[in-house]
Order: sequence, then structure tokens, then C-alpha cells
Amino acid sequence: MKIALAQINTTVGDLQGNAAKIIVAIGEAERAGADVVLLPELTVPGYPPKDFLLKRSFVPANVEAMERIAAKVGGITAVVGYVEPHQAEKGRGVYNTAAICRGGCIVGRHRKILLPTYDVFDETRYFDSGETPLVIRVPTGGGEVAVGVTICEDLWSDDFYFARRLYQRDPSAELRAAGAECIVNIGASPFAIGKPARRVKLFSQKAADHGVPLAAVNLVGGNDDLIFDGASTAFDATGKLVACAKSFAEDMLIVDFSMSANILTPMPESAAAVLDALVLGTRDYIGKCGFKGVVIGVSGGIDSAVTAAVAVEAFGADRVHLVAMPSRFSSDHSLTDAELLANALGCEMRTIPIEAMHAAAEQTLAPHFNSQSPDVTEENMQARARGSILMAMSNKFGWLLLTTGNKSELAVGYCTLYGDMCGGLAVISDVPKTMVYKIARLINERAGRELVPEGTITKPPSAELRPDQLDQDSLPAYDKLDAILERYIENEETVDEIVAAGFDDAVVRDVVRKVDRNEHKRKQAAVGLKVTSRAFGTGRRMPIAAKYS
Amino acid sequence: MKIALAQINTTVGDLQGNAAKIIVAIGEAERAGADVVLLPELTVPGYPPKDFLLKRSFVPANVEAMERIAAKVGGITAVVGYVEPHQAEKGRGVYNTAAICRGGCIVGRHRKILLPTYDVFDETRYFDSGETPLVIRVPTGGGEVAVGVTICEDLWSDDFYFARRLYQRDPSAELRAAGAECIVNIGASPFAIGKPARRVKLFSQKAADHGVPLAAVNLVGGNDDLIFDGASTAFDATGKLVACAKSFAEDMLIVDFSMSANILTPMPESAAAVLDALVLGTRDYIGKCGFKGVVIGVSGGIDSAVTAAVAVEAFGADRVHLVAMPSRFSSDHSLTDAELLANALGCEMRTIPIEAMHAAAEQTLAPHFNSQSPDVTEENMQARARGSILMAMSNKFGWLLLTTGNKSELAVGYCTLYGDMCGGLAVISDVPKTMVYKIARLINERAGRELVPEGTITKPPSAELRPDQLDQDSLPAYDKLDAILERYIENEETVDEIVAAGFDDAVVRDVVRKVDRNEHKRKQAAVGLKVTSRAFGTGRRMPIAAKYS
Repeated sequence: MKIALAQINTTVGDLQGNAAKIIVAIGEAERAGADVVLLPELTVPGYPPKDFLLKRSFVPANVEAMERIAAKVGGITAVVGYVEPHQAEKGRGVYNTAAICRGGCIVGRHRKILLPTYDVFDETRYFDSGETPLVIRVPTGGGEVAVGVTICEDLWSDDFYFARRLYQRDPSAELRAAGAECIVNIGASPFAIGKPARRVKLFSQKAADHGVPLAAVNLVGGNDDLIFDGASTAFDATGKLVACAKSFAEDMLIVDFSMSANILTPMPESAAAVLDALVLGTRDYIGKCGFKGVVIGVSGGIDSAVTAAVAVEAFGADRVHLVAMPSRFSSDHSLTDAELLANALGCEMRTIPIEAMHAAAEQTLAPHFNSQSPDVTEENMQARARGSILMAMSNKFGWLLLTTGNKSELAVGYCTLYGDMCGGLAVISDVPKTMVYKIARLINERAGRELVPEGTITKPPSAELRPDQLDQDSLPAYDKLDAILERYIENEETVDEIVAAGFDDAVVRDVVRKVDRNEHKRKQAAVGLKVTSRAFGTGRRMPIAAKYS
Repeated sequence: MKIALAQINTTVGDLQGNAAKIIVAIGEAERAGADVVLLPELTVPGYPPKDFLLKRSFVPANVEAMERIAAKVGGITAVVGYVEPHQAEKGRGVYNTAAICRGGCIVGRHRKILLPTYDVFDETRYFDSGETPLVIRVPTGGGEVAVGVTICEDLWSDDFYFARRLYQRDPSAELRAAGAECIVNIGASPFAIGKPARRVKLFSQKAADHGVPLAAVNLVGGNDDLIFDGASTAFDATGKLVACAKSFAEDMLIVDFSMSANILTPMPESAAAVLDALVLGTRDYIGKCGFKGVVIGVSGGIDSAVTAAVAVEAFGADRVHLVAMPSRFSSDHSLTDAELLANALGCEMRTIPIEAMHAAAEQTLAPHFNSQSPDVTEENMQARARGSILMAMSNKFGWLLLTTGNKSELAVGYCTLYGDMCGGLAVISDVPKTMVYKIARLINERAGRELVPEGTITKPPSAELRPDQLDQDSLPAYDKLDAILERYIENEETVDEIVAAGFDDAVVRDVVRKVDRNEHKRKQAAVGLKVTSRAFGTGRRMPIAAKYS
């Protein structure tokens, strides 16, 4: 039996466009001689459709698209994800379903059993849980094969979430007991650092546990904050990985369980994976929103340099517009480093000094400040002048403003609301500062030349909002800060646990206090590309007017 | 049997503060001769605790607080909501539990069975579902009474959500079958227009269906976007409402099922309920965040006038600071109406003209606009100058900036990101413009004088961002707009359905297109007080980079 894994990039809500892509992919798989073709979870509506599922017209329109797709399926068995309405009196009224299509119609349906409801996932908000997992008989040249069908989380029953196993059932075990000779999975599993390896390990174990081959297609592409990395996989009955599709790109992987495949596209790791993810996430956000260009404020610092390099890789230098906005506190190297960056990337850069707006704000507000001494207010005024300039360029020319803050800053609130936080997409807001440096080095290494200027990488980071300011005046060294943040945010460790791991008590308390106090800023942050196990945004839901420490 | 309904206002995460309040309330109920005292759902951690529940220290700390409370309970039976950890190998590891406390210890536990996961609720994200509902035997002067315990949603099995009944089980029926002679409910049911009446109707039906008396305590207070209205209720065995506590204020209601009570604090309706909700929501957000003052930009228009009046009612005139920011496009009545408002409210108002900042922005950007004709960019520049001024005052003096946009504007994107959308709390962002007018009239009626100036109420609304601009140049009349928005946003009706209800096809399509295109603005909006069945924010989760129409 030959299985095609059609790793396609869908757009949420684009029922016509997705259907057209699905039909092309099924045709391609059939021409390649596949017996079965797998399309990702919820291929027809796109993933995640969120509250589109509550629109009265959406589910019926997705059913219509699904039926049009099924009508075009010939001898191949196509497994396609869609939203299936049902008529039961009680419940949500819809399943997250894999339609089994053959000979012009839907011949079977598997309804997702395990519905992830944690982190960024809200599936019990929308779907009823399926009851019995489906084994389908697939006709092949060598007779029928009993194929067990699963959808994404159905295979994750053994995974841990904050040290807990969430599910009572194991659909793959139920399928094996029902006679499945192999297991297929259609998924929409978003990227995070380490996640692709975890997926391989889990799936390998499932194949080995049940002694059956396993093929799992994954969605690819960026949808708002989530970046689906593809990297669809196949395993033999011993759990050995025999095939892996491209990461962060569309692909069609064809595997044959009767012989051992050996198609192992390497998976990028660590900074390389993050960089690929950011490029894909940025490209898809811009493309799926339909913007014709982007604008980025460049300071000569590392964050804006990396954001600009990612945007150029994603979108092309001619559509990336850089703006340097020097102030009375800017050092000479700020402008020269920004110019070096623009030249290396081949982007247009214009210089718009903020002095006039800064001075006007000071003059306007001075009579109202009651001679109070300067504080963060005056710093924020500069950041907001820059935000206004960038938004004016965005509004005037229809360019999406990319915001450039990193995760470390956003965590401790070292950023200005309506200032440097302005923008529609936060490219690196889930990338810790120490990882930003690694990515900068990697960008240069891949280019074989200095895209991010060496000076940008080596100078000590500064917001340049007052004379001789350095980040390290207000924050612990970034390697310490990032280590504490990872423990506090990603692992939900307590202060005591973090201190016990060897960090200074006062530093830990100060960092934790800063994180807690800045929830209100993150509430209003731009959509940020998720690359860690716990990003700010939809996967981390904190009260604001609250007291707990 | 006497039941005390202790309708208290808790703070999310404030385990010590909440425990202290609970202990006081239990003592008060005991002194009043009650046999049973009911405290709201999740009283100990506050509701909703959200991802605090994932912090490793939070659940143990809440257990410790719960045990301290139980240790202080004497002869009365106290029903207190908390988070109960369990040791089962699989699942979320915690229940949403009602602890039954008597004689210094916890003598029983009901675990919430129906976990709401829709709109603003995410309970399956956190909790495991309880299995068997609990009937407790409560000692009273006249012998033991079998009391069935439920938590909030447990009684909502018959409710409809978008025309669907979500639940398979009905815990109240199970309790009745298990011999319950009366039913109690501890709830945290947030306010929306019409919701208190719906609650009374549902509970009344439950009491009548089972032929038992029913007492339901509800949380009161604002917690971020959610405003809990209290209005705790008791019904006799025929379903007749025999007692109702205060709405939007703490209260202690004591009812006796052996005789018919008759304590019916009236429930406000429509605009009156919304106004009370906004005052409570604003007061609690400010208070629970710990701000010492608020700042509001006043334009002479109705939205800022109503926001200011609500803030004064919530917080006192001496802590409300108004700023008028006239521009070259402001009409004379803008400033005079703002002054009339400030005088009537007794607030400090200062005037900070934006001309210098506006001119500086124009001068700074002119060389970069390539002689393109003025468009929305120039309007946004003014709104952003105002936003910067208000944020500077907020930063300098530690005042929370209240943003003043209404729901109609936010829906169609008739507002400026980082401009008039600046602020930490959006007081009226879930109030349609037509309701804002009703509230303005009501504010004046209650005050017995003109707090909101008559000119502000009668003049045609204008953003005054270009000469002679009126809202109605860009938008349909507000009565039409609001009717369309209610159908599209609250009811999720399709364009065809709205047109079939008698609205102009082109107008409906234009409104719907505007709503869909402005998701990115709402993504970055301030926390907004929820007063309708469907507010923007946590209860409406839309994809952004998506295509569906």
C-alpha cells in the first residue's frame, strides 16, 4: 500500500481556495500511484477556524466544499479534514472529522476523540468528541488493508502537559484492538522549539507499541500566532522513522509500507528551526492578510535587525521599508549600523528624526508636569513619537508595521505601550533575547556575509531613551534573565523552585514581580509568532486586576 | 431550615483577603441563626482564576486557605467554593469544588459536573468534571434536611447556546432522584443585558420541575472584563421567586424555606442595569489594580462624557482627571461642553491643545508622503497625539487612562489604534452607541440635574478630525448600525438573514465587511467591560489572517 502525505498550506476560512488546493493534491497523489492520500486536520476550513465555527453559514459552506471535493475523488482513498455537523439534540452540533472519500463520495468518517483544550487549543469550545475510532478497508493492488484513522491529538494520549496525562482513552490502542493493520493520522500540530522531536518520539512509540506502521501528515504554514511546521512522518512497525517531509514548506511525501522507505528530509533544530518558523510565520501573516509591503523601525539594535532580515527573507527586499528615527539620545553607531543593515539587505531606508515631535511633546506637556523630575514618562514619549511615525507610514502606504520587541523585554515590560509595541505582527515576541543573538549569527552564516552588522551583534543593548542608557542598568544580564523567564513562564516554576536551582533570590523576585505587573501591556500586544512551548497570547491567559504573588 | 446567601466581592488570586472575607461572612450568617451559608463559586481563589491554576504554588495555597476557613466553621454548615486537587493518574488534576464545612472540618465535597466552555468560559481547560452530585444532610432545629449541592452551570443544563443544549446530564434531576429535599447553588454568573432575568427563569423552572425549594448565591464584583451582578435568589417549591439580593453590591440574604420569604430587592433592567454594571466594573478594575486616580480625554462628545460620569460615580470626582485636547478642527462647543461636564461632575479639567504636536507630526512626515492627498492617516495622527498626551499624564501621575470608545465604533473600526484606543480599561466598549445615549439620559435623571450637558446629547456625533466631519458621513445612522451589529455579532446571523429582516443589502454588506476587516484593531484593544451577550474580547475569538465572507 502506497500512502501520500499531502502537506499543504491552507488559509483559515478560505473554503474555495482550500478546496482547490485539496483537489490538486489528491490528483497529484493519484497520478503518483498512491492508494491513500492524507490531507491535514480541518483542511477544508483551515486550522484553527476559531469562532468562524459559530457563524451560521460557515459549517454548511464547509460541508458543501467537502462534498465538492469528495465528488472529484476517483479510485484513490482520500482522507480529508472538515467540520461535520450532526443532528443530535444535545451537544455542540459538530465534530472535527476526517472524511474518507472514494469513488465520488464520502465512504466513512472518523470523528476526533481527544480534543485538546490547553495552551493555544480550545477544541472542546467547539467540537463534540467522537465515540468509536474508525478502521477503514482500503483497496490496494495487493488486497485490502485495514487502516485505523486518527486525527492529531488522538495519537497524543501518552503526552504530558505540566506533568499530567490529560486523557482517559487511547484511540490508537482501540484501533489496534479493532484490527487496524496500520495507523494514519491527519494533524495540525503547531511548531515550538523541541516539538517536532517530541512528535517523532511519540509517534514512533505508538507504532512500536502496537506493532503497526504509522503515517502522519501535518499542516504547514502560519495562521496568526501559530506556525505549523509540516515535517510529516512515517514509521515502520518497529517504530523506526522511515520518512520525513520538509519542515516549514509544502511537500508531498509518498511512502510504501511494503518496503522500507528512506526519505528523510532533515529537520532543523534550535535557532535554525526558529528562524525558519519566523520566516514562514511572517510570510504567511503578510500574505494571508494581503499586505503589499511592510515597514519596520530600525534602531541599529539587534531586534530590529533580525526582524528586518526575517522580513526580507519572507517577503523580498523591495517590499520591506525601513525607517531609522534618530533622537537627541541616539549614538552615532545607531544610524550607521542601521544603514549597514539596509545596504546589506538591499532595502530602502529613510531617516525621519523625531526631534520636532519629541520637542513638541515636551513643550506641550511641560506646563502640566508640575516640575516633577524626568522619569519613564519622558522615555515613553520618545517611543510613542516613533510609533506615531511608523503608523503614519503604515496608514499612508498600506504597509503592515512589524513590531520588533523580543520575549525577554515583553516579559518584564521593558517596552512602551503604543510606542515600540505598535504594529500588526510581533515577529520575535516569543524569542528570548539570547536566542535573538543566535539567530542573528545564523542569518549571517546562511547568507555567507554580514547581513546583521557585526557592531549590532557586539555592542551592549540600549533603548537610547536617555543619555548612556543600557538595558543592563534595568535588567539582569540576559542569559540569567532568560533562564529565569523560561522557568517562570514556560515551566510555571515557583520563586522558591527557581531560587533552589541556583538563582539569586532578590533577582528572581524582581523578575517575577516585573512579569506579573506587566500583564496589562501584553493584553494589548500585537499578534506574536509562537516558537516556544508557552508564548504570551492565546496560550497564556492571565487575570489582570488580581492579587497573587 | 434557614439559608444565608453570602454575596461577597472577591479578588482573583487574593487568597488571604478572600479567606478573611469568607470567615467574616460565615460568622455573620451564624450569628443571624442560619443553618447553612452559601459562598460563591471558587470563592477562595476568586473567579475566574484563569492560568493562575497552572502555577505550581497556586492550588496548594488555595487548599491551605480553604483548610484555614474550614477550621473556623462551627455549628453552621458552610458551602465554600475552592479548587480541589486529586491524585488520579490521568486528567487535569483539579476539580471546581464546593466544600461542605462544619465543626472545624470539610465534611463533604461536590465537584462541578457541567463545565462551561463557550463565550468567556474556559472551564474544561482547567478542571475535571465531577461524577456524582452530592446530597448532604444538614442538621437544623427541626431535624435533618437533605440538601442537593450544585455549582453554577450545574443548574444550566436546560439553557440554550446558539440554539443548542450543550449538556447530556442534568445534575439537579440526579439530585432529586437521590432524595434532595432542596437544592442550593453556588455561582459566579457574569452579567449581560437580560441575563439576570434568564437566570431567574431557569432556576424557577428547576425548582418547579423538581418540586423543591432552591437557593442560589451569585458572586458580585468586577474582575477584568466580567462583571458579576450578584442578585442571589431563592425560590419556593412551586418555582416562585421568594427572595432576591441586591444587584451590583455585596449583600447577605437570609431565607427560610419553612415559611415564605418576601425579600425582593428589585433588579435593575436595560440601561439602568448597564449603568450599574459599568460603575461596579470600573470601580473594581481600578481598585483591584490599585490605581490612585484615572485620567480621561474629554471631547465634548457623548462617549467621553458618559465614561467620565461613570468614573466619578465609581471612584469620586477628586480622583478623576479630565483632559480636553482641542485641535484646529475642534468646534467651539467641544470645549464648552467639556467644561460644562467637568463643572457638573466637580472634576479637575485641564486643556492641552494638540496643535504643536500635530504640526510637528505633519512637518516631520510631509517630506515622506510624496505629495499624496490627505486621507485617514492625517486623522489618525491627531488621535495619536491625543493618545500620547493622555499616556504621558498616566505615566507621570500613575493614573489609569480610561478609553472612551463605544461598541458600535469598535465593531466597524471607527477608532484609531494607539490613538483614542489608548487606555487600560475600556468602560463602554461593549455598549452600543444608541445605549450610550440612553445611559446619558439616565445619568442626568438619577442626578436630578444635567451632568452630561444637553448639548452633548443633542448635537450630531463627530470625531472632529477634519473640517465639518460627522460620524454619519462614514457610518449608517446609529439605530440602523446597532440593529445590524446586534444581529451580526451577538446573534451570528448571516448577511442574507439580516437583509431578510428588512435591512438594505449594500448597507449590511458594508457593515459586515468593516467588522471583519477590523479584527486586528480589536486584538489590541484594552480590557472592556462586558455587558452584552457577546462582547469583543475573550468571548469572541476570531482569526485575523483569514479569508471568509
